[in-house]
Amino acid sequence: MSKAGYVAVDWGTSSFRLWLVGRTGAVLEERRSPEGMMVASKLGFAAVLQSHLDAVGAGNDLPVVICGMAGARQGWVEAGYVDTPAQLASILARAVAVPGLSRDVRILPGIAQRNPNAPDVMRGEETQLLGALGLDAQGDAVVCIPGTHSKWAKVKGGTVERFATFMTGELFSAISRETILSHAVANAEEADDIDAFRSAVVAAFDAPELAANLLFRVRSGQLLYGGSAAAARERISGTLIGLEMAAGLVKDQAEGGITLIASGRLQQLYRLAFDTLSVPVRSIDAEEAVRRGLSMAAATIWKLQEDYK
Amino acid sequence: MSKAGYVAVDWGTSSFRLWLVGRTGAVLEERRSPEGMMVASKLGFAAVLQSHLDAVGAGNDLPVVICGMAGARQGWVEAGYVDTPAQLASILARAVAVPGLSRDVRILPGIAQRNPNAPDVMRGEETQLLGALGLDAQGDAVVCIPGTHSKWAKVKGGTVERFATFMTGELFSAISRETILSHAVANAEEADDIDAFRSAVVAAFDAPELAANLLFRVRSGQLLYGGSAAAARERISGTLIGLEMAAGLVKDQAEGGITLIASGRLQQLYRLAFDTLSVPVRSIDAEEAVRRGLSMAAATIWKLQEDYK
Repeated sequence: MSKAGYVAVDWGTSSFRLWLVGRTGAVLEERRSPEGMMVASKLGFAAVLQSHLDAVGAGNDLPVVICGMAGARQGWVEAGYVDTPAQLASILARAVAVPGLSRDVRILPGIAQRNPNAPDVMRGEETQLLGALGLDAQGDAVVCIPGTHSKWAKVKGGTVERFATFMTGELFSAISRETILSHAVANAEEADDIDAFRSAVVAAFDAPELAANLLFRVRSGQLLYGGSAAAARERISGTLIGLEMAAGLVKDQAEGGITLIASGRLQQLYRLAFDTLSVPVRSIDAEEAVRRGLSMAAATIWKLQEDYK
Repeated sequence: MSKAGYVAVDWGTSSFRLWLVGRTGAVLEERRSPEGMMVASKLGFAAVLQSHLDAVGAGNDLPVVICGMAGARQGWVEAGYVDTPAQLASILARAVAVPGLSRDVRILPGIAQRNPNAPDVMRGEETQLLGALGLDAQGDAVVCIPGTHSKWAKVKGGTVERFATFMTGELFSAISRETILSHAVANAEEADDIDAFRSAVVAAFDAPELAANLLFRVRSGQLLYGGSAAAARERISGTLIGLEMAAGLVKDQAEGGITLIASGRLQQLYRLAFDTLSVPVRSIDAEEAVRRGLSMAAATIWKLQEDYK
């Protein structure tokens, strides 16, 4: 245990991930739980964190760095926002210490876009951006971070110039469960229908104004022509991702390709969508990115060894 | 009671409406209930209908004409579809008799668009179209019938050439209740925020590809700038209606203005949206339209007095 250097936590709305990181930067232990902000705000953030620290045998003096919704107003301690244009480095400088604890616990702020015509906020993705692009990033990047609330960010020389959130994941969930399309996707097998996904991406990308019609066609097409529940699910998914890409891939943004920060199935789906639209992609694992961002924070705040140098 | 001529029923997915119509065409009695297809498929369609016929004292020999989801595959008796291009008159000719009853009960068919690139179906709206435009309609009309599943139809000389369904109402309901925006609209007062609605209509109409972002901004705007739950609700509504109009108001369709078939709050909202976009509207009450369509059916099937001559 004496090898441990710090603890890194990615505390989202509905998920909690903790890594015990060694002094040399290696991950010694890992914890995953559904105790995100929604659950932790009932159980108590301090209690949830302590239970996981105990489970990995973290010493009482081990510092903890946290990103995500734990820093929201309805979270543990409000960590505020860095406003756009936001230097990624300033996120580290603006970490907030949780008061009243014997342990040193810091929560990183989010980023806010205080533009009345395009108000937006992120919490957690700023740490992924930091981890993916680094503190001294040169040049421009258009970054897509898919999820419940997908983020598209324009980053220039280490500064987040602007970003936009798309409710893609949450719309998929609500539409698949709470509308007439729930019948179309009922008991969908795990099998993917790549053609259905690709053609739905193209249809929504080419005619985003038809989105609410393309969704209904999932049902009417099944009524008139049959088709599997798996294909229906892929069509809903492709329609919503194609709609998002119609906004994200505006001319000046798509030219240099896209940096995709994602893991697992979302990474597969978005890579397939970008491939369908012939957009070059540099793909970075989302979990790697957030751990690297937290490691940069630990290195800056406590002068600890950065594990990705 | 001897004055009664027939019974007209509009049997939707979640609502049931019945009118006892006199021989001279006047409405003698009216019934409304939530026993739409969803409920009636459990209680039994014959039993639900009989209970309402008893309640209005309808004689045993009084014929009944029905439109809507009672004719769906999962309804009472499948009444099939007339395919596009669909003459409105042919809907009357293709009414299906419910077998095994002593009473003469007919269900009107829907309309299907058997185009693999734009499959679509309607049930109930064809009767509204008939009632609104008449059997011998001349010239072109672009008709908007807002609802859970809004319909836009291009009708030429009494023939439905093509149509499209938009899940606008159902999306509004699912998004307001089942996503993060449920917090934004919680406990919304009845007060309308016309400016919020209008600006959301324009924003989605001008940039439909941003739909999933415009929806999130309802939340982020409230976080950063405050704003009432009522305004948030109007923004969601305006965004989804603006998105629908971006598809419906394509150049060649909007020129001659729009025929709007709607009642109550939906009529108000859509009139406001069309007004915001400077589109001339001829407004027809939806309930009037369906009653008139059913009356045309009764007149054709049983040679009864048509009450709207």
